[in-house]
Amino acid sequence: MTATLPVEITATRELVQPALRAAVDELEPSMRRIVSYHLGWLDEHGEEVTAGGGKALRPALALLAAQAVRAEPEAALPGAVAVELVHNFSLLHDDVMDGDTERRHRPTVWRLFGTPAAILAGDALLTLAVDVLERAADPAATSCLTESVQQLISGQSKDVDFEHRTDVELGECLEMADGKTGALMRCAARVGGLLGKAEPEAADLLGGFGGNLGLAFQLVDDVLGIWGSPEVTGKPVLADLRVRKKSVPVVAAFASGTPEGERLRELYRQPDPPTEEELHRMADLIERSGALSWTRDAAERYAAEARTCLDRLRPPAEIHTALADLTRFVLERDR
Amino acid sequence: MTATLPVEITATRELVQPALRAAVDELEPSMRRIVSYHLGWLDEHGEEVTAGGGKALRPALALLAAQAVRAEPEAALPGAVAVELVHNFSLLHDDVMDGDTERRHRPTVWRLFGTPAAILAGDALLTLAVDVLERAADPAATSCLTESVQQLISGQSKDVDFEHRTDVELGECLEMADGKTGALMRCAARVGGLLGKAEPEAADLLGGFGGNLGLAFQLVDDVLGIWGSPEVTGKPVLADLRVRKKSVPVVAAFASGTPEGERLRELYRQPDPPTEEELHRMADLIERSGALSWTRDAAERYAAEARTCLDRLRPPAEIHTALADLTRFVLERDR
Repeated sequence: MTATLPVEITATRELVQPALRAAVDELEPSMRRIVSYHLGWLDEHGEEVTAGGGKALRPALALLAAQAVRAEPEAALPGAVAVELVHNFSLLHDDVMDGDTERRHRPTVWRLFGTPAAILAGDALLTLAVDVLERAADPAATSCLTESVQQLISGQSKDVDFEHRTDVELGECLEMADGKTGALMRCAARVGGLLGKAEPEAADLLGGFGGNLGLAFQLVDDVLGIWGSPEVTGKPVLADLRVRKKSVPVVAAFASGTPEGERLRELYRQPDPPTEEELHRMADLIERSGALSWTRDAAERYAAEARTCLDRLRPPAEIHTALADLTRFVLERDR
Repeated sequence: MTATLPVEITATRELVQPALRAAVDELEPSMRRIVSYHLGWLDEHGEEVTAGGGKALRPALALLAAQAVRAEPEAALPGAVAVELVHNFSLLHDDVMDGDTERRHRPTVWRLFGTPAAILAGDALLTLAVDVLERAADPAATSCLTESVQQLISGQSKDVDFEHRTDVELGECLEMADGKTGALMRCAARVGGLLGKAEPEAADLLGGFGGNLGLAFQLVDDVLGIWGSPEVTGKPVLADLRVRKKSVPVVAAFASGTPEGERLRELYRQPDPPTEEELHRMADLIERSGALSWTRDAAERYAAEARTCLDRLRPPAEIHTALADLTRFVLERDR
């Protein structure tokens, strides 16, 4: 079964897309072309395409957050655009750092246009994000954005460091996940609230909702990175194990104190790239160590925490439903 | 003869350094260490060093700009720190893109800590720059900064594109120089003025001063990139010709309509890397085409334009002297 995005989420896209395009139009032509390719608006020859693009969860979260505090979704538009731009800045740079050659079934920007183009396009999007939000003249919103960017950078920095380490602990690993995914989703919800003139307590609850949703999202992502179906995720089978990524299920297996966890650690320490048979054995070891269940349970716990924030926030009924649907989608998605 | 920095410029460092260190202290430890190495505060083992660091022209320009409109230099500190952080963001990323292995006689960050570390440290500095300036609560200053960052990115993007082209025109080349160096120096002076509560006309004149000074600076840089003394510049002899950079003197030679210019173009088109003998011939061809004189004259013209802005601005006498000294230093420097 494929979990589909709740209708309220897809509806917000219609509001966000024109604003996002208007922002990208401010870039100079060569950057605009590269960014438009990355966003799935143009193909590699610069021709317009209709399909494509990401899930755009973060902008949806920003607009729904404004509505949650009874503001019009339009109030949160600069925040929605800014977080989506920051998200894409981080994708462009992460693909360079991780050497990933494909994203959403297409060649990554560095692969197609070169590393300098990908670095510069990322820099341009980060700068544009600040610029767009700055115009909303809400200093708390801008500083929430820059703070979340620093957390994002710190999370990616940990991710890169973990590659060279075999002693990564579960706490650090969850911190990394919070930096890479929690921080910007927390910011998306909080900024949406701030631009909707939320009271401080409501802004905190929205941040709590977004941050926990982001952590649940990342843990599900980590599960899909190992057990996801390649045709659906667009990544190779057992992708994260192939590159010996220290994602949460892997580190949870290390921390499990089981013989399976120890055996996995040994396989991770091997100098040679794992064979296909070893990859399947690794996935099996993680499952038998109890780490797959642990990760799924942890994702459920974060989602429950998000729902608690939502209940305390008491948004209008239809917004409560939309945000609860979004939480369910995050847990049930297969891509 | 070595042109030394005017005393007023070195004096501003004493004000800027503590503020810059306080800003960098906000970064998380792993980023802070990398940035502190890049800024010349730590050696590669993380030990403190006393020497090192760049010329810090941009922050000096910001502080002097505030004083030019009769404000205290302290008023411009957030701007001074922000432009220095942006400058260093661009150095970190440019070194990755250009594959440069040394800066200021030391290994570059990507060379020592890896490409991901250099990309992330640059991202962190760009974000920190916005954050520091944002706290000064002057929206015009922040948008001046983000605009100059986009121009910087656009200039670097042209620089990268030029590598694959042999038909670069002089106008484009000067635009590139304006983006890479003019924009941030224009911003430094303008932001210093804005934070010093300059009238709009004075802010424009300060921007004009900074932008022209920046162009003069870049043209002198281009001359040093070919004829600079390796012991002083820290770059190999004939450095820019070695990598067949399309700097202003080279493109001016192409545009000279002389046989020397045509011969240089042919040498630039050769598939094999130039021999030492060819490198010297290339430098000689540029000189004989008149392009070295043209570049020097153009630098003088931009400096004269900067001085005109300064005269119209009518700053206090000692600030006029300091900014005129700075202009002379930019033209006469050998590093």
